[in-house]
Amino acid sequence: MDMVPVHSLLPDLKKIVGDDFVFIDDENRNKYAHDETENLHFLPDVVIKPRTAQEISEAMKLCNHHKIPVTPRGAGTGLSGGALPQFGGVLISFERMNSILEIDERNLQVITEPGVITETLQNAVKEKGLFYPPDPSSKGSCFIGGNIAENSGGPKAVKYGVVKDYVLNLEVVLPNGEIIWTGANVLKNATGYNLTQLMVGSEGTLGLVTKIVLKLIPLPKHDLLMLVPFNNLEKAGEAVSAIFRAGFTPSALELVEINALKIVSKFVDSSIVPVTDEMEAHLIIEVDGNHLDTLMAEMESIANLLVEYECGEVFFADDAQQKEALWKLRRRVSEAVKIDGYTIEEDTVVPRAELPKLIRGVKELGKEYHFDVVCYGHAGDGNLHVRIKKPGSIYSLNNPDVIPALKALFKLVKSLGGTISAEHGIGLIQKEFIDIVYSSAEIELMKGIKKVFDPNNILNAGKIFKA
Amino acid sequence: MDMVPVHSLLPDLKKIVGDDFVFIDDENRNKYAHDETENLHFLPDVVIKPRTAQEISEAMKLCNHHKIPVTPRGAGTGLSGGALPQFGGVLISFERMNSILEIDERNLQVITEPGVITETLQNAVKEKGLFYPPDPSSKGSCFIGGNIAENSGGPKAVKYGVVKDYVLNLEVVLPNGEIIWTGANVLKNATGYNLTQLMVGSEGTLGLVTKIVLKLIPLPKHDLLMLVPFNNLEKAGEAVSAIFRAGFTPSALELVEINALKIVSKFVDSSIVPVTDEMEAHLIIEVDGNHLDTLMAEMESIANLLVEYECGEVFFADDAQQKEALWKLRRRVSEAVKIDGYTIEEDTVVPRAELPKLIRGVKELGKEYHFDVVCYGHAGDGNLHVRIKKPGSIYSLNNPDVIPALKALFKLVKSLGGTISAEHGIGLIQKEFIDIVYSSAEIELMKGIKKVFDPNNILNAGKIFKA
Repeated sequence: MDMVPVHSLLPDLKKIVGDDFVFIDDENRNKYAHDETENLHFLPDVVIKPRTAQEISEAMKLCNHHKIPVTPRGAGTGLSGGALPQFGGVLISFERMNSILEIDERNLQVITEPGVITETLQNAVKEKGLFYPPDPSSKGSCFIGGNIAENSGGPKAVKYGVVKDYVLNLEVVLPNGEIIWTGANVLKNATGYNLTQLMVGSEGTLGLVTKIVLKLIPLPKHDLLMLVPFNNLEKAGEAVSAIFRAGFTPSALELVEINALKIVSKFVDSSIVPVTDEMEAHLIIEVDGNHLDTLMAEMESIANLLVEYECGEVFFADDAQQKEALWKLRRRVSEAVKIDGYTIEEDTVVPRAELPKLIRGVKELGKEYHFDVVCYGHAGDGNLHVRIKKPGSIYSLNNPDVIPALKALFKLVKSLGGTISAEHGIGLIQKEFIDIVYSSAEIELMKGIKKVFDPNNILNAGKIFKA
Repeated sequence: MDMVPVHSLLPDLKKIVGDDFVFIDDENRNKYAHDETENLHFLPDVVIKPRTAQEISEAMKLCNHHKIPVTPRGAGTGLSGGALPQFGGVLISFERMNSILEIDERNLQVITEPGVITETLQNAVKEKGLFYPPDPSSKGSCFIGGNIAENSGGPKAVKYGVVKDYVLNLEVVLPNGEIIWTGANVLKNATGYNLTQLMVGSEGTLGLVTKIVLKLIPLPKHDLLMLVPFNNLEKAGEAVSAIFRAGFTPSALELVEINALKIVSKFVDSSIVPVTDEMEAHLIIEVDGNHLDTLMAEMESIANLLVEYECGEVFFADDAQQKEALWKLRRRVSEAVKIDGYTIEEDTVVPRAELPKLIRGVKELGKEYHFDVVCYGHAGDGNLHVRIKKPGSIYSLNNPDVIPALKALFKLVKSLGGTISAEHGIGLIQKEFIDIVYSSAEIELMKGIKKVFDPNNILNAGKIFKA
């Protein structure tokens, strides 16, 4: 090992990925210095855009030899700072590895490169009558590789599961440059430790995913969508678990607090949802399947059940356009409230029936710590996104004003049987809090695993764990 | 560390688990010297039957200090030798840790100890209208803890997934005696590495699972079952993937070759399935859901589709009794053919549509190596159990007669995109073959993980990996 300045590697990096795909100019470095996480900014020294696993392998051998920090990056839509090059070094962008390699209609599988936009992948398989359900709000811009890194969810997770439930096999470049496959292209696998599942959600700290084999399912023929207002936020939370206890499994069950709805309606200039002064929250409920009459009966039963939870007048989306308008509102909430000043987004998750307690606790904490709080998220999974605004206070890693409030929030989450991230990951911004949910023995196991994969700690170092 | 004879630990072990639950007599040692894997036999020095995680923790501290081998054991129904104490030492039986701790109807979860029989657990949650789908053939005797260790599947996996898809959180005693939880009781978790999924299927080599939190789903109200004969085994295999390509997702899709069916029908003295000379295989197809009319339409559509694959006359199970009789036949195939002399069971799995190629290859290998071969299994998952009989040859770990044939089989499986175990695990008997499907880099990663959890290599040593 020789410690050398990163720039001395430029000739080798250019040889590996080509002159046109190595960048050290300010514009490019700045472009890759931030993601969607608050206002964080870390400049990489060099940005490279490889095209193949082989190129990545060679670049990793080089960086590993010289112990240069490497940060993998998808589309930069992350909400925990996982793609930020905190220690500079080499940033690897996957944007050129953007081919869908094979849609295997015989086996209901797709093999893809990591730089494909999630929605592009979904649409490509949809054309074959197939379905890849995980659909983070950023699906129109995020990469499937980033989804693997964060174990992304989205609205459909409540019925169809998250990314980990669809990943069959991964090609991975290890920090030492070796290229491995984590499993096999099969639906069941009891052959050694589950390296596939270990990679999913490891936030780019264990290896660089270069090929992805995903399970697909038949595309459901129909879906129905309704919007249900509630005059009481906690009642809305109670209604969520009642739906499942009654035997229904909606394909989406989202909650949006009234303030968030008002902000996003204004943001996208939509008046599709009428709002009254009494309303506190809405549930967005979708069912899907192959039999329209069955679905209509199901929707009616769910609507009837919700009356017990003091819901207001149910609004059924009539056509594809109305559905899309409603989903657009839901998908853009995060962006809208961020611009409105709710810069800090937390990704809490509790057992579904504890949602009312979480909501109540969040509101009490807001009062106690003098924060404005707005909630929305995947209620059916018990996954509540909590956005915080405090006049004059913007997130920073060591903000003395914010940390105690977040610690109190996460202790509440833990006490309800939950955890501090459902689908955004720990990255840079939550590592401060990981010892609230994991003991030192648990954290040491994770650090031990990291060391097995990356003994020199060059790959996405400083993420997940405190130093 | 002091190297001491195991028996010198007896006073301490008795203090930890109680005098009545430490055994060194021949009868007990012999009882725990074998499982359902061929004819293997390894005597433990001591058998202990702890009641709590705390007792296991103390026993592990003691054994770890003295580097005494420890083998965890569920019900001993394993088919890869994972519960066999190859190096003697202390065997820990979980049979006293057999309480279902809580059925959480609000959150659709169950918290259970590992020594509960799988079917007992299924029935307990069924009484609350809930469903825990994974159902290995041995469900009437196997323990849920053993199912976690092997990542078990069973017929329902094709629609509902395997054990890993239901495990939310695990309490685990590490080899050094520390007690950890692997995650949280939530449906989505992006908080650090997925230790839960790493434990599932790790065959008792990383830690001892002492509490299990499982996701439950609403119990489907109805199911329908049919049996479809084929005069051509490969055509039956082709029909399997055609069903999924047509958009159906049966709740079970099993294949039983005619010889297996004849043997098991005789074994359980059943004549429910009429057999003709032309038949080569049967498919058992189940659909389930909440709407009987929809299911009946689905069954009819599937039956119509199968005509293209030259199926014979479809037999619909009329009532619960007929369904149970059919399932009993399927569940007892393994036992019946084993007694008939097919002692070697392999657990091959390939992408679903490659099943016909696998079947053809298996038959060719049988001829080439002069084996009798019989196939059955979870065809919908591409998971084919291959049973081999060779007159005068019984399985042993270094049988020169058998190993080359199995190597050829597994190379075929690998070439089709599959792997050597879908649900039985590697254990003792498949470790010889693991390098057919994993590269040395992949195996070294797994061994590195083992070392993080168990630096002294005392817990179920000698399983999964070659020395």
